[in-house]
Amino acid sequence: MSGREKRSLPTVGDGRLHAEDDRFYREEVFSASRNSALPLEALEKPITPAGMHYVLHHYDVPQPDPAAWRLEVGGLVEKPLSLSLDALRGMPAAAYAAVFECAGNGRAHMAPRRLSQPWFHGGVGCAEWRGVRLRAVLEAAGVKAGAPEILFTGLDEGVQGGERQFYQRSLPVKEAMGEASLLAWEMNGQPLPAAHGAPLRLVVPGWYGMANVKWLGRIEAIGEPFHGYQMDVAYVASKSADAPGARITLMKPRALMAPPGIPVYMSAGGRICDAGEVHIEGKAWSGRARIIRVEVSTDGGASWQAAGLGAARSPHAWAPWFFKWNAAPGRHTLICRATDETGEMQPLDPEWNVEGMINNAVQRVEVEVKSSK
Amino acid sequence: MSGREKRSLPTVGDGRLHAEDDRFYREEVFSASRNSALPLEALEKPITPAGMHYVLHHYDVPQPDPAAWRLEVGGLVEKPLSLSLDALRGMPAAAYAAVFECAGNGRAHMAPRRLSQPWFHGGVGCAEWRGVRLRAVLEAAGVKAGAPEILFTGLDEGVQGGERQFYQRSLPVKEAMGEASLLAWEMNGQPLPAAHGAPLRLVVPGWYGMANVKWLGRIEAIGEPFHGYQMDVAYVASKSADAPGARITLMKPRALMAPPGIPVYMSAGGRICDAGEVHIEGKAWSGRARIIRVEVSTDGGASWQAAGLGAARSPHAWAPWFFKWNAAPGRHTLICRATDETGEMQPLDPEWNVEGMINNAVQRVEVEVKSSK
Repeated sequence: MSGREKRSLPTVGDGRLHAEDDRFYREEVFSASRNSALPLEALEKPITPAGMHYVLHHYDVPQPDPAAWRLEVGGLVEKPLSLSLDALRGMPAAAYAAVFECAGNGRAHMAPRRLSQPWFHGGVGCAEWRGVRLRAVLEAAGVKAGAPEILFTGLDEGVQGGERQFYQRSLPVKEAMGEASLLAWEMNGQPLPAAHGAPLRLVVPGWYGMANVKWLGRIEAIGEPFHGYQMDVAYVASKSADAPGARITLMKPRALMAPPGIPVYMSAGGRICDAGEVHIEGKAWSGRARIIRVEVSTDGGASWQAAGLGAARSPHAWAPWFFKWNAAPGRHTLICRATDETGEMQPLDPEWNVEGMINNAVQRVEVEVKSSK
Repeated sequence: MSGREKRSLPTVGDGRLHAEDDRFYREEVFSASRNSALPLEALEKPITPAGMHYVLHHYDVPQPDPAAWRLEVGGLVEKPLSLSLDALRGMPAAAYAAVFECAGNGRAHMAPRRLSQPWFHGGVGCAEWRGVRLRAVLEAAGVKAGAPEILFTGLDEGVQGGERQFYQRSLPVKEAMGEASLLAWEMNGQPLPAAHGAPLRLVVPGWYGMANVKWLGRIEAIGEPFHGYQMDVAYVASKSADAPGARITLMKPRALMAPPGIPVYMSAGGRICDAGEVHIEGKAWSGRARIIRVEVSTDGGASWQAAGLGAARSPHAWAPWFFKWNAAPGRHTLICRATDETGEMQPLDPEWNVEGMINNAVQRVEVEVKSSK
């Protein structure tokens, strides 16, 4: 069943779905306060510390007893499994750095704006994940022929769109059996923090964040494609309220900069900087192909120059970029934009959709350059 | 100089200082997104994990090179010091759990609301801090007689109220030499995370969070009381725009509960719960005296019952409390309130001030109880 028509989107108290102006609803601010953005100065680091990495929770953070916790593996498998964390840690481990980005990153820059988590640019991070390959666990259970998808169920429960649910997402078997998919118990060399899915989370590099199911409780091979709320209602992009929503999958290309200079408190991102040579750096990524170009404009988009591009730490990590700016006194708008190997380049303005998803429009930073003397 | 009259408060783009209605400004949402609240379910834990503890930054998170970093101790001292982290770690260490609460916690519940970080209830956490007693460092430097205060300067720099500044706060010498004040390099048994002030922060238990200066760079004994921006403008509470602001010092009593049941997404705190016996728990604290009573109302404040009160882990930590609720189907408003040994009890409604500070009005949780069958 496609179910989308029968289901409702979450609304705020007065039943609204969108904000038409530049003011925000209390419910959006509550969401922004509970969740956490990457502070953009952390874009200087190749690996994001756990406490600076973005977090987005739909429901409460589960706090299972690690000793009693088991990963149940079932459904259309030859041999259902119930695995302790020790059992999983006894299997061959793999590790790599991967960038995660929330599908709703950039939503606060869309107008009208879907009422959901109001990200500016900070719904992103790049951490080192360590765990067992998902494929190894699925092979141990023996997925039966004819199962098209694997379903992942988190321990986090809530009501969304009027529907009581555990957070659930599926992946095609082919993707689940891929080289890169991990069941991770470590982040940056430490046991997975509660806010990042302890004791075990899924890591599917290249996909937007919603695929990386946290606080895993159960993995099932299923007999037909899954049409749950988080597949068909929450994580889709629709051109209009009547149009069918396209499911969200791989991250679009994006570059972000660590804003230069110092911040102006309560300016929503305005900066003060001393005149002279300013070193600007940032990171760029795409879930679709490697980044081949980052450009910077220091005049609000009138002209563009190539930034230096470094190597990513892993095929799944973000790539560092660098730019030297000779900053003259006055007000300037800095912009950066990335292009990936498919030829896709970031747009200058948001490409609107009903749900406020996958907005990879360029970042603009307003800087007031002061004479250094 | 008192300077308060000469200084300005930060405003949003159109120059406004307050929001008069229930909508929020973009700049407030940006602040809520950059900073992080305690997810209230973490109130079940005696010690808050670093990634769930509140953070409030005025400016960017500094990222000093730990090997090159030094704590400079100077001003009116016999022997100025320049201390590496290793040198500090070589001194006798002390550790204890302490609750930290932002002075602006609860600001989003005030009307009209000062434009600043729009906390609901989550500007709080309780962690284990380990470091050297501040007194030991001050004694090693030898504070000269006649210095009334010690000034603490962080490495974090920005513009606030039109004034370019490093974050700076002072303490009276007597408070700085007290038994409890620490220079901490560890949080919950791990090196201090960047977001919590690495490599070294001040910990002054009992005071609101602004006193616990992060990313310490310099400590100075000064010859007269300090009237900096964060003392006389940012962290004061004024009855009216013309009235002098009273400096903010010790935390007022407060109890918070982990909301029972499961959340309703985009409800700003609404909950769904099954009928029957519901175990409610939370934490209570005061910076002024120990908590002697926590009461719970399950009928919106019409009647109150005593909660069970446990022992705090340290004289500076929050105390656990427990309450059994026989939840009948229907809608209910749960409230909790604390009283400390001075006799001070939380008010039912916010006690308004210009800056939106020290609002310890009770927490209200709206719960819809569903029949369990």
